[in-house]
Amino acid sequence: MNRSEYPRSVAIREVGPRDGLQNEAPISVGERVRLIDALSLTGLRRIEAASFVAPSAIPAMAGAEEVMAGIKRKTGIAYSALVPNLRGAERGLAANSDELEVVISASETHNQRNVNRTIDESLAAVIEIVALAHGAGKKVDAIVSTTFGCAYEGDVEPSRVAAIAATLRETGVDGLSFGDTTGMASPRRVHEVLDAIEGAGIAANDVGLHFHNTRGAGLANVLAGLDRGVSQFDASVGGLGGCPYAPGATGNIVTEDLVHMLMDMGIETGVDLDALIGCALLAQELVGRELPGQVMRSGPRSKTVEGATT
Amino acid sequence: MNRSEYPRSVAIREVGPRDGLQNEAPISVGERVRLIDALSLTGLRRIEAASFVAPSAIPAMAGAEEVMAGIKRKTGIAYSALVPNLRGAERGLAANSDELEVVISASETHNQRNVNRTIDESLAAVIEIVALAHGAGKKVDAIVSTTFGCAYEGDVEPSRVAAIAATLRETGVDGLSFGDTTGMASPRRVHEVLDAIEGAGIAANDVGLHFHNTRGAGLANVLAGLDRGVSQFDASVGGLGGCPYAPGATGNIVTEDLVHMLMDMGIETGVDLDALIGCALLAQELVGRELPGQVMRSGPRSKTVEGATT
Repeated sequence: MNRSEYPRSVAIREVGPRDGLQNEAPISVGERVRLIDALSLTGLRRIEAASFVAPSAIPAMAGAEEVMAGIKRKTGIAYSALVPNLRGAERGLAANSDELEVVISASETHNQRNVNRTIDESLAAVIEIVALAHGAGKKVDAIVSTTFGCAYEGDVEPSRVAAIAATLRETGVDGLSFGDTTGMASPRRVHEVLDAIEGAGIAANDVGLHFHNTRGAGLANVLAGLDRGVSQFDASVGGLGGCPYAPGATGNIVTEDLVHMLMDMGIETGVDLDALIGCALLAQELVGRELPGQVMRSGPRSKTVEGATT
Repeated sequence: MNRSEYPRSVAIREVGPRDGLQNEAPISVGERVRLIDALSLTGLRRIEAASFVAPSAIPAMAGAEEVMAGIKRKTGIAYSALVPNLRGAERGLAANSDELEVVISASETHNQRNVNRTIDESLAAVIEIVALAHGAGKKVDAIVSTTFGCAYEGDVEPSRVAAIAATLRETGVDGLSFGDTTGMASPRRVHEVLDAIEGAGIAANDVGLHFHNTRGAGLANVLAGLDRGVSQFDASVGGLGGCPYAPGATGNIVTEDLVHMLMDMGIETGVDLDALIGCALLAQELVGRELPGQVMRSGPRSKTVEGATT
């Protein structure tokens, strides 16, 4: 058969409770805990649970400490938290986050608009955060946002992404992910970015990809990543979230749609699809709007028509 | 770069006015003509315009003759029509369809439920339709439905698909397409089906693929096809249509999302994306419900945020 070797298994980081809910109308701490606890029973091993930003900046993420204290932690699951700065990292560690996430944009404009700092200033902060986290025995994952394009600057040179990735590696971060912040990736750009970062000595099978389905190509971009051996992907249950730059548009790729496709490709995820669909329906109920997930509506492909003959 | 050679250009058959609208609440003949005429100005070269079924069977397709007579035909565009039987073919040719489409299911159960005939009976009818069409100097495209799975029977063996495809070739049909009728394909199945039909002597670059996005993997399946050199795809403007087996679920892949992805991959389609987005917005207005298209909501990736610095 004339096709590439896909990875045997894929690790999914569920980002719905943070990246998803951050872009929804706020729901209560209790509801966020309920969603995370349901996700903990699906077989997912990595759940982005909170963001230690100032509540005034992102009201939907208020009460991060209460969320981290309220969830029933399950052995084997890493509950991670986004931290925007050293103060956030201190809070995140105090709340016993298993892993911290830092975000740096590949676009100078986006970085300044997003966190009011230059990329260099953000990189300097990462060094401090890594030192703090490692001192506490915790890991740091760095996410390079606007990797495939920026809503302010347009195209982003893969070489710039690779340079930032290489610098981040030098800071001692434990993991690297590349984010398609506003759904500007296509399979060609996935290949070009992976070419560039491999050229910088970073292996494709050692990084994570974070796609948005804002222009419909989310799972096609995943497939391009799989073709190159990438085995870590972010996704949001039900497709929670949206695109801050395009009202009504879709955000993160949908976890259960991703799991459904991977299952049918024979790629292990360790996730119970039915339980995950249950979480997507719960997420939809909690936010009170129809979510973009497809499999939660159609059911898995194994679901045949009632009264079918076989 | 470690990736396959994609085709330089792709031909898209726009199926919204037929496969799409067939699954929507009926709109008037005048509205259908308006949509087709708008699509004729986008650069699309193949538009499925009507279905010559009994209006009692599919009310949304009533008035096929009036549609074909009402549209402003543009040179270089093939306006095709689905014909379910010899009587439909006679009507389709009398209405001056440029191309007829016949559908045969790879699943015996689906074929019988769909047209109340065995696959063999359908194949016999195709021979008659081909003779009639060729006598009138017109072409016939055969679509093998349920190629990637059947909502009644579940999995469909690729060898069965290949056998039906080979038999269809012998009937003298001018083109062959493979339909994922209810969104059960995945990239693995695309490769397996293409393996099987290539094994039967039919080249991947000589067939069309017809995907539904019912489980979110529509454009990933397109990418798998592109990886194998497939250069003909069906799609529906705005994502018109739906899945008859799953109320509220998505049907055909979205034409403008497909065009957007192909454009960014450097693959020619000849289609003006802005004009096509205009058609998607028109389609949404005509059917009076929110369509699943993503690019019509978010805009193309070239659209930067207002007030962006560059």
